[in-house]
Order: sequence, then C-alpha cells, then structure tokens
Amino acid sequence: MDYYVGIDLGGTNTKIGVVDKEGNKIFTTTIKTESIDGYEISLNRIADILKENLKEYEITLDKVGGVGIGVPGPVVQTRIVKFFANFPWPENLNLAEEFEKRIGLKVRADNDVNVITLGEMWKGAGKGHSNVLGIAIGTGIGGGIILNGQLVSGKNGTGGEIGHTKLVRDGKLCGCGQKGCWEAYASATGLIREAQGRLIVNKKNQLYEMTKGRELEAKDVFDAAKAGDKFSVDIVDYEAEYLAMGISNLLNTLDPEIVVLGGGVSLAGDFLIDRVKESLKKYALPSALEGLKIVQAELGNDAGILGAAYLAMM
Amino acid sequence: MDYYVGIDLGGTNTKIGVVDKEGNKIFTTTIKTESIDGYEISLNRIADILKENLKEYEITLDKVGGVGIGVPGPVVQTRIVKFFANFPWPENLNLAEEFEKRIGLKVRADNDVNVITLGEMWKGAGKGHSNVLGIAIGTGIGGGIILNGQLVSGKNGTGGEIGHTKLVRDGKLCGCGQKGCWEAYASATGLIREAQGRLIVNKKNQLYEMTKGRELEAKDVFDAAKAGDKFSVDIVDYEAEYLAMGISNLLNTLDPEIVVLGGGVSLAGDFLIDRVKESLKKYALPSALEGLKIVQAELGNDAGILGAAYLAMM
Repeated sequence: MDYYVGIDLGGTNTKIGVVDKEGNKIFTTTIKTESIDGYEISLNRIADILKENLKEYEITLDKVGGVGIGVPGPVVQTRIVKFFANFPWPENLNLAEEFEKRIGLKVRADNDVNVITLGEMWKGAGKGHSNVLGIAIGTGIGGGIILNGQLVSGKNGTGGEIGHTKLVRDGKLCGCGQKGCWEAYASATGLIREAQGRLIVNKKNQLYEMTKGRELEAKDVFDAAKAGDKFSVDIVDYEAEYLAMGISNLLNTLDPEIVVLGGGVSLAGDFLIDRVKESLKKYALPSALEGLKIVQAELGNDAGILGAAYLAMM
Repeated sequence: MDYYVGIDLGGTNTKIGVVDKEGNKIFTTTIKTESIDGYEISLNRIADILKENLKEYEITLDKVGGVGIGVPGPVVQTRIVKFFANFPWPENLNLAEEFEKRIGLKVRADNDVNVITLGEMWKGAGKGHSNVLGIAIGTGIGGGIILNGQLVSGKNGTGGEIGHTKLVRDGKLCGCGQKGCWEAYASATGLIREAQGRLIVNKKNQLYEMTKGRELEAKDVFDAAKAGDKFSVDIVDYEAEYLAMGISNLLNTLDPEIVVLGGGVSLAGDFLIDRVKESLKKYALPSALEGLKIVQAELGNDAGILGAAYLAMM
C-alpha cells in the first residue's frame, strides 16, 4: 500500500492527514470537530472531507492501506471508545466500525497520547527505539507505553492512565474524583494550583507582579523562574520533584529505553528537565537510569497524524 | 520437542525439574545451591545432577527443547544476570551461555518473580490470560509483568521492580537505600517493621502477648487479627491500604486482566485480599477494576520450575 490516513480527533479541532509509507505528509487539513452535533454528523463530515482531499490529490482508495484515529479517551482493542473525554458522544462507541462504514477502509483507533507516542517513535524523538514511554504533561498527565513496538492499552483501554497513579495517600483532590493523583500535583493544572495557593500567602514576588489582574498560566511560572524569581524557582522545584517521582515509578516498573516528554509543561525545556533528571536519582533504581534517554517530543502538532497513520499501518 | 527443563535458582536451594510440553512433571529434585563455592562449581553441580536424572528417566538430550532458569536478580535479554541478590557471584554474568556450555542445550534465564508469573499463567491461577500481573509479597515486593504473553523485563532487567515504586515522598527508608518504596510499607518486612514500631508504644494487645520473648513474624499479625485483636486488625488495614495503593498504580498503568498475589503475605488469604479489594476503589480507576480478577497464586513451590520450563519453550 502506498498511503495511510491519520486522524487526530480533538475536543475542538480534528486534524486529518495522509502520509506515504515513509511518513512523508501528502496533505493535512484541520476542521472544527463540533462534537456537539453528535458523532454521526461529525464522522460524516470528517469522512467527506477526507474523500474530497484524496480525490483532489488523485489518491484512489485502493492505494490507501488504512485509517488510524487518535481519540481523547480509552480505547479497547483499537475499536471501541469507552468514553470520549469532554465529548457528548455515547459510551462504548465502536468508532472503528462507524468510520469503516463511512470510508470503506480498515480503521484502527487508540487513545490520543498512545497515538502521539507512536508518532514520536516512528518519526520523532523516539526514533530507533521500540520501548518508549511517552508522557504528555498538559491539563492532565497522559501516558503512552510502547513495549516491543506494541502499545499497552490494557483490557479496558486504561493502559497508560499514568496521571492517575497515586503519589500521595489521601492527597490533593483530582479531577477524576480520587485523591493524590500524580496529575493533581505535576500537570499544568497542578502547577497552576500550587502557584495560586502560594500566591494567596505571598505576594512579594515577580510572579505576582507579572500576572496580577489576569489568569495565571503554567508558562508564567517558568518565565518568572527563568528571570530569577526565587518564589517561582521553588514552584518549579516542586514540579520537578513530583515529575521525577511519578516518572521513576514507571521506570522501576517498565525500564524503557527512552522517555519522551510532551505537552505544554515540557516546553519549559532543559530548565525543567535538568531538574527532573537530578531528582530521578532519588526515586529511580540506578539500573533503570543506566543508558536511559529523557528527551522532549519533536513532532508537535504532527505527532497525532503521524502516529495515527502508523497505527493504521501496524 | 518432548521435554523442557526448569531450574529455580535460589539463595539456599535450587530446584531442578523436567516437564513435558503439557507441563506434567517428569521429575523434580532439590539441591543446596551453595553459591559460596562460586558460580562455576555450583553450575557444574546443577548440570551434573540434571544429566544424571535425565539419564535415569531415559530422556536423551535430543528430546529436550531447552532449559529455563529463574534467578534472584535482574536479567537482560534472557541471558545476562546484572547481579545476583545475596549471591557472591560476579555481576553481568552470562548465565545462559555458562549453562549452555555445561549442558549443550539452549538456555534462557529471567528474574525469579517473572518466571513464577509465567508459571502461574501457564499452569496456575493465571491460566487462560495473556495480560497478567504477578506480585510476590515476601521479604520484599517483586513483580512479574506479562503483556500479550510476553514478559516485560526492560532494557536492563529492571522491568517489574515494582517494590521500589515510591508511595511516600521522603518516606520510610528501604533496603535499596532510597526512601518511600512500596516494599518499605507493604512487604512482610514492612509489615513487621510497622508492627514492631507500634508495639514499642502499645503493649496492651494480643499480638504482644502472643509474640513476647521471640521474633515477630508477619503471620503473627494476621493470626492475631483473625483472632480479633483490634491492635492487629489496624495493622492489617495499614497493610491492605498500602497494598491497594501500590497495586492501583500498576492497574492504572497496565490495566491487566488478572493480578496473581504470591509470597508469604498473600497466604493471609481473603482476610487480607478482601480488604485490598475494598481499598482499590479509592485508588484505581473504575475502568481498570472492571472485569479485573485478583487471585492468590496456586502453584506454590512448583511455580518456579514450571515457569522456567515455559520460558525455555517461549
């Protein structure tokens, strides 16, 4: 087969792309998901736009090996989406079957962070490795675990839900309703929450001056810390410490070759990652750190499309 | 091939067995490991006894498909033992090669808890499953992770070192030198340590009466709790809580079909496991618990031999 389709189904936007078997992009396009219309209308729209584009690029369906879709939610056996986070779509939707009906090609779906990790393994920061731990640190913390080149999705698609591993017994309340989850501490939301809590009792700092009168973002903390604000450096140390603790638990369990950090928080770069590496020594077994690479994701917005296309190819 | 050899190399004893391809034991024998003699003498002795027994049972080497060995330590690529826990044997010993030289058969080695988990998957409590999490709760806490029928050993054999996942930041000191490890709380040693600490400040309890003047064992705590000692029931609750927290982190990461609990602590049975199951609801995502089985290991001392024979067969 010459081509593969990758679809990155997001809460707001859906990216649609076609790549060749080497991963070269033939075309990509982005549309509004408008999930509020219901899955039938949204999927019809995506299928129509995909077909139009294929036609325009003179790619006939018999040249397309399959379709991969990354979705925000747990996926069972690359077909059934247990639930869509923030989408008003039904639970246990057989997304693969639904899209197969509309496009006439074999479809595989998986969780978005899993798919992104596949993309980074194929064409990005994880290239050349088959045991890859992808960690997306954004609103929450998501994980993509690849062992021997295969995704760990679990019996109910819960594989890689690392943001809900517990680091503190009866700790901070998490959005999931449980307490002490890693993402309640070290996601962008966790970081903002910690910063806001500290700002209540201490306003003599640059971060307060920088952000007063507007909403605080995770990036502000890193910016202020990089500018030398001691108050903010302390918050970055807190972030690095909990990142290291959570990552170490995965290293001691899986002993991967490489950790690929993505998501908004990872954009803080070496300023954060160097601190994390230092703290890992406290939490990870020396043999898990031996020869381990910890790198930033490389593909950005393309990871979803490339990973989904790779999923179609697997 | 008609037969496979399984060897369970332990700190004190080494079990040697031959099974047919259905897992029926043809013979088993146990010898002292006497690791103090050095690996060359110990391996010679094991090879000699194996050959004698094969001869006695009229099994020629051309009927034997291979040898599997379970060892107390991390193993890389089923050949090289990074180090032997409590053995005065060299680091990075190519155990597979050394034993191949002595027996003239293909040899594969892996960590003992990994091998036990293979055994339980093949012939024991994990039968019929290919995504199995084995947890051995004894002196420490060891893990065997099987995904899609394959062991997760990791790049340096650290895969499954779940006892050193951290549940408490800057928590109790662990034998590994780090702090807050799961096994510092929930292993038999962790349980004894907690009980001893409490007994220093409270002697008005059955546990104290039962054990005064001798060394406390984990079993004593369960026995006293089962007999209604409130002081001991509290310690069992502590044990169950930390077991649940540690297990949940693995469930949220791997979402296995079944958890097989082995080791001395698991012998407390439903009295403990029912409490663990109840506490899991606080820590594990509901989707990870859906359809999950949590069972006691079934094979006891045979797990090592059967698992090692299965490893040889893989």
